[in-house]
Formats: sequence, C-alpha cells, structure tokens
Amino acid sequence: MQYVFEQKVLFRHCDPAGIVFFPRYFEMVNDCIEHFFDEVLLWPFEKLLETDGVPTAEIRMRFRAPSRHGDRLRLILDILRFGRSAMDYRLIASCGGQVRFEAEATLVHVDRAGRPAYWPDPVRDRTSPTTEERA
Amino acid sequence: MQYVFEQKVLFRHCDPAGIVFFPRYFEMVNDCIEHFFDEVLLWPFEKLLETDGVPTAEIRMRFRAPSRHGDRLRLILDILRFGRSAMDYRLIASCGGQVRFEAEATLVHVDRAGRPAYWPDPVRDRTSPTTEERA
Amino acid sequence: MQYVFEQKVLFRHCDPAGIVFFPRYFEMVNDCIEHFFDEVLLWPFEKLLETDGVPTAEIRMRFRAPSRHGDRLRLILDILRFGRSAMDYRLIASCGGQVRFEAEATLVHVDRAGRPAYWPDPVRDRTSPTTEERA
Amino acid sequence: MQYVFEQKVLFRHCDPAGIVFFPRYFEMVNDCIEHFFDEVLLWPFEKLLETDGVPTAEIRMRFRAPSRHGDRLRLILDILRFGRSAMDYRLIASCGGQVRFEAEATLVHVDRAGRPAYWPDPVRDRTSPTTEERA
Repeated sequence: MQYVFEQKVLFRHCDPAGIVFFPRYFEMVNDCIEHFFDEVLLWPFEKLLETDGVPTAEIRMRFRAPSRHGDRLRLILDILRFGRSAMDYRLIASCGGQVRFEAEATLVHVDRAGRPAYWPDPVRDRTSPTTEERA
Repeated sequence: MQYVFEQKVLFRHCDPAGIVFFPRYFEMVNDCIEHFFDEVLLWPFEKLLETDGVPTAEIRMRFRAPSRHGDRLRLILDILRFGRSAMDYRLIASCGGQVRFEAEATLVHVDRAGRPAYWPDPVRDRTSPTTEERA
Repeated sequence: MQYVFEQKVLFRHCDPAGIVFFPRYFEMVNDCIEHFFDEVLLWPFEKLLETDGVPTAEIRMRFRAPSRHGDRLRLILDILRFGRSAMDYRLIASCGGQVRFEAEATLVHVDRAGRPAYWPDPVRDRTSPTTEERA
Repeated sequence: MQYVFEQKVLFRHCDPAGIVFFPRYFEMVNDCIEHFFDEVLLWPFEKLLETDGVPTAEIRMRFRAPSRHGDRLRLILDILRFGRSAMDYRLIASCGGQVRFEAEATLVHVDRAGRPAYWPDPVRDRTSPTTEERA
C-alpha cells in the first residue's frame, strides 16, 4: 500500500547552510503521516486524538543527499506491516529522481491511558488489499 | 568520552497530547551536539560553518517513554567513534532515572564543497583519551 | 490587491492546550508571503534570496479567537502599500467566518549588503492595478 | 519590574540568510515569559496549564537589526501593567549594546473555559513593588 505526499522545500525548512535542517524532515514525515490518516485511513488526527494516540516508537532516517530551498520533494509512503496495534512504514523522499532521505519507523496505536490498543476494524480494513488486488 | 546536556521540557516542545512532539527531540539533539562542539571540541558551529559543515548522515531514535512539560531531561552524549571524517555518537535522554529516548547517529565533517574532509588535528586531539586515561 | 492562502491546522502547529501555538502563526504568515512572491510576484524566495532579501521590519498580530487542530484557516493577504523598497500588508485569518488573527506588517527589499533597494520593475508592475482596474 | 533572560543564537534559530528567522524570535519570547512565570511569579507553566491558560492577545515586534548565529542576546522584560486578568509587557533584545528587536505584548489569564480570570493573589503580590521599593 503506497501513498504519495508532495512537499516543496520552503524557507522555514532551511538552515544557514541553505539546506533542509534535519529536524524539519521529521516535521514533514509527521505531516505526511497525518495526511495519510486523514485521506486513506479516514481517521484524521484531530478526531483520533480526542480518544486515542499514535506515538512513534522508533524512527531511523538516512540522509542520502541534501535538499535545497525550492526543491520539490516527493515522499512515497509504504506501509510495511499493519499489526494489531502497531504500524511499520518506510518513507522515501526524492527530488528529480535523486533520493534525499529514507526513513523507517514504527508507530503504535494507544488508548487514552497510553496502552497499546487494537486498530479499529474500519481503519484496519482500509489498509487491506481489495478482493481484486488479492486475486 | 561523555558529555552531559540538561534540557527542561518547555511549552514549545509539547504537542496537544501534552508530551514532547518527536521532531522537537531532534532539535534538542542538535542543540546538544552544538554545545558539545562549542564547549568540548572548542569549535563552535558559528565558526565551523564559515568554511565547513557537519551534516548528519544517519540517525535512529527509539522512544522509550513520553516526556511531559516541565520534565528535566538529562542527555548523556557518548562519542562511539571519531573516524577520519565521521563521528558516531549515542545519546540517551532520561528523567528521574527513566530513559525517554535513545539515539544513535553519524555525522560527517565536510568541506565547503560538501566533500568529506579530515577532522582538524586540534579537534581530533580533544576527543582523544589523555595519557592517564590510556594507561 | 488580494491573495488567498489556505492552511489546515496540523498537529505540529498545536500546543498542549490543543490550540495553535502563536509562533506557529508567524510561520504560516511566512509561508503565505513566500507563496505570494512565488505565484503573484513571480519572484520565488529561492531565486530572490540568491542575491536579495526581504526581511520583516515590523509585525503586529492580534489574536481574536483560538484555532484548533483540524480547523481550515483562510488567510487573506491585502497589500496595503507597495513603496520604493518596502511593502506593507495586512493578513486576516479566519475559519468559518470567525476571525482568528489579524496581522499587519512591513517588509523591506534589501540588496546583498542588506541595504534597502528598489523593487525590480517587473515585480512592481505585478502589484499595480491593470488599466481596466484603474478606470 | 524587570527580568533578564539570556539566549545565544543557535543553529536552529537561523535561516538561509544566516540570521534569525523571525518566527524563532517569538519562540524566544515565549521561552522568556515561561521562565519569568517559573522563576519570578513562581507559577510554572506546567502547573498553570493544568487548570488555567495565559494566551497572548496581541504582540507587536519591531526588528531593529539582524541577529547572527552565535550572537549572545540579552532579553530585558519589563512588566508595564499587571491588570486584573491581563499583563502588558515590553521585551527588548540586544547584543553588545545594539538593539535587535523590541516587542510589546498583552497576555491574558484565562480559566479552564477560556474566560478571562483574576490573577491569583500570590501571583499578583509577586509583581508588586515591596514596601522598601515603594518608599
């Protein structure tokens, strides 16, 4: 399952070296995941957070090449595994065919008390391949 | 070689769930490394960046427990390897004895053109164990 | 001359009170101005900054009502005055007809040395009313 | 009543022009106010926010001169008026005697429902001149 998120590198992302300051990449990752929940899982963060949470448990990012102000990044999100309460994903950002960063992360669905909780069925269903895709 | 950096969790670090928004942790990591270069390597970023750079090549962070507004974090930086142009480090943040995150990262010393470059000798010397420590 | 910029309130904008942290509004203002330069003045920041600058000289913001995660803000930019080297603007952000903030600011076009400089003619022309509008 | 807050300009504050990105100044202002509540009013934000809030109602900032990476800023906070539920302050940031920005702002003490509320007496008392100062 793939999801594409476009992000132009803006002034606010860049550091004195004229390239993206790496903590800003993690804000982009969060924006991408937030849009994925909104548009694909149909569970927007602003609803989800009223009762649940999806904290990141682990993230690893490799920076392949610097991104400059004005670059149009294409982030491709791959859901690697959608477990009972966790979700593993890979996110590859590129510009003009050149990879800029590769991230792998795990986030966990938790209840109000912060304990891992099963994904709701409708959410889980939206990550499943359709019958046609299965066939 | 260890370096300790203290950081209280401030309002600006926190998200609607009342805990540190994970991209803010990476800003803390950057602040810690910036202070380490300033105070230990005696090569403050504002000087270093006039001619060189130290981009992060890779970083991995595991989030062990959430941090809340007001928590006093203690970040312990361990330099794992100081190579010819790279530096590997581990950074463990805790509060009251509880680990909050563990990070491992590699940064690379580059010249003006962005090519990996040897660390200056005085900088390298400051990361070496003293004779007493060696003995 | 008016320009409209849409911005959904995202997780990264919000503070522990669940509303937009006010410094994030200033990032939105900067994003809006950056898009205005790109789309209307046809002078994208990433080009402009190669030789010139447009630092903000003054900004004033009144916060009329809080904005919450998920709110869809509509920012309406009005250029109040396009002087020889300065630009005065007003920016009103609202959601569902309710004003959230009103900002007034002045930014200045400067050359590489940081001195105020005339706006380039093509840029100035794009802010002028057309003959039809004048009539 | 004055309060002094020191802030070195760090890498994360700076933009591709090598100077402080103006929204970061507002984060510094917030940090300064947070420390003032903690150290002078003895009402740290992390306690205050459990039941109350202090949203900013209005802020105006004039940028007098740019600040560069490594500059050591001195922020001087003056409480201009401590009303029933509002607080007006001026904040002047300088480096080496040169003013970098001047801010004036109003923040409002609100209760859980977001309505303006009287300052608690102990907090109010801490902003009053002592008998000796009055004499």
